Amino acid sequence: MSQKKITVALDGTGGDRSGDINRSVVNAVRFALTLYPSLYLIVFGPSELETELKKATIDQHRVDFRLAPQGIPQDETPRAVLQGYRRAAMRLAVQTVVDKEADAVVSGGGTGPLVALSRHLLGTLARLRPALCAKIPGGPGRFSMMLDLGANATSTAGDLYDFARLGTAASRLLLGVSDPRVSVLNVGSEQGKGSALIRHARDLIKADRSLDGEGFVEANRLFCGDTDVIVTDGFTGNVALKAAEGVAHIFAHGPGLKRFFAKMACPDWLQPWQYNGSLLLGVNGVVVKSHASAGEEALAVAMVEAANAASCDLLEGMKETLLK
Amino acid sequence: MSQKKITVALDGTGGDRSGDINRSVVNAVRFALTLYPSLYLIVFGPSELETELKKATIDQHRVDFRLAPQGIPQDETPRAVLQGYRRAAMRLAVQTVVDKEADAVVSGGGTGPLVALSRHLLGTLARLRPALCAKIPGGPGRFSMMLDLGANATSTAGDLYDFARLGTAASRLLLGVSDPRVSVLNVGSEQGKGSALIRHARDLIKADRSLDGEGFVEANRLFCGDTDVIVTDGFTGNVALKAAEGVAHIFAHGPGLKRFFAKMACPDWLQPWQYNGSLLLGVNGVVVKSHASAGEEALAVAMVEAANAASCDLLEGMKETLLK
Repeated sequence: MSQKKITVALDGTGGDRSGDINRSVVNAVRFALTLYPSLYLIVFGPSELETELKKATIDQHRVDFRLAPQGIPQDETPRAVLQGYRRAAMRLAVQTVVDKEADAVVSGGGTGPLVALSRHLLGTLARLRPALCAKIPGGPGRFSMMLDLGANATSTAGDLYDFARLGTAASRLLLGVSDPRVSVLNVGSEQGKGSALIRHARDLIKADRSLDGEGFVEANRLFCGDTDVIVTDGFTGNVALKAAEGVAHIFAHGPGLKRFFAKMACPDWLQPWQYNGSLLLGVNGVVVKSHASAGEEALAVAMVEAANAASCDLLEGMKETLLK
Repeated sequence: MSQKKITVALDGTGGDRSGDINRSVVNAVRFALTLYPSLYLIVFGPSELETELKKATIDQHRVDFRLAPQGIPQDETPRAVLQGYRRAAMRLAVQTVVDKEADAVVSGGGTGPLVALSRHLLGTLARLRPALCAKIPGGPGRFSMMLDLGANATSTAGDLYDFARLGTAASRLLLGVSDPRVSVLNVGSEQGKGSALIRHARDLIKADRSLDGEGFVEANRLFCGDTDVIVTDGFTGNVALKAAEGVAHIFAHGPGLKRFFAKMACPDWLQPWQYNGSLLLGVNGVVVKSHASAGEEALAVAMVEAANAASCDLLEGMKETLLK
């Protein structure tokens, strides 16, 4: 299968700082180049990363290294991120998308800094509130889109409605669902459950004829494929997925034989969900946040997801749907 | 071991309505009486439940049945619950605690109605905001207290501080932890993470010298025993535990052999957590909400938990700690 050439910019400073981060980035680069034969990378990072890249058995013509040793602390304030850090790897990587040098950008750095830089440098789409969106498994061969996963610390009902529009467009474009069902995450599926904000969001979504609002979904049904788009505020979404991840981790990291049984027990379709990167929807560019603590495979998968999103013209499709 | 006689009032109308609810309640009654030899029950419900109870092989002297066929719909508004439903099983069951006929009450009915009736009939403790609190596993032989799990649809920073005080008292009295560490559930453990409300709650807890405020805990660490009391708003707490439950359920209900492997893989200490009832802390009586969808074992465990809480004088201990 011939694929069109896709260039992804990689922030090589982000991610989990335990262990040898440069070695891990290089492994991720190698995996990604193997998984996606028409992928080209622009990698930003420290000189040690350049040295490791040069030593690795990868096609050097497909990697353009640029020196940018400055990282941004995870919990730096948006103001500080925008005013300082002019030469930070994350900023320069996002800038390549603005400049159309790269088709997408991937970072495993802090969510706050990545959202601030992306909004500031790329701008937003149709004045919608941007949100982090992940593809979560919903049974064999099925996926749902879930957003927001932490781009925003708090959300209004109007923000949740924006997320419904963004998620619906992404479900169509990335998963090929023709008429995506949208549900709001709540503590019960009955009409009167939850806060006034949640019920208002449900009403806004139901009132929009271009959306297929289905009401509420409970967190124990997240991985059941009951709905195509799961809408929630960034705080709740982040907590829900991390709680699920915590239980999966306990199963997968038991002592001795238990770990073997867990491997046998885990349904194939559930396996890779922690590895999927999250797309920052609602900004004027393809931005993928990789799940730092999930390791080098996660960073590689995030690069492939970014390339896929770019190659199916996600951004143009979003614009067409949302600006009309 | 001789235990003192404990009387628990049971709302026999609540719970999951799929299947034969009366049969299920009778099985739960039988389990609970076997598990807790000095337990006596006052059971409220429809005449069909009385018939089933009479047929069952249980010690009829330990069960006092009272006819109360009226149930309360899960999502009935607090106002309607308090104004109507004067003869509802749930209301009459709570009333026996007010009248000191029973030491505790258990219901698998709607959270909203149970909280409304308990607050109204029993009153609150020290003007604290009541919250649903569950004992969740945190490794072999370890438990943490987590609250709120859905008694409140929204919470202020002051409410979260109340939950910290309630959870600390319960951790001391029920788990024997001398100096319980308290953490607020957040999307990251760094200082600046989360909303202003979350950070304010953390500061209120840290400022109280009678509490051991530890800062934040992330949802993927919920079951790791990092902290003794996990404080969160009722919406997030409910979603987090349900998301965790959803994943555990997927493991436990795979097809054929996978299900067998899941049983072998699940750590012993993780097994029963979905079955624990939730204590409604902050009201002037021992009230336990059983997890309706977890079945008859869950209802039986909830009765035993209620009896344990009553037998260790939870309420007197809470009053001593919180009113001093």
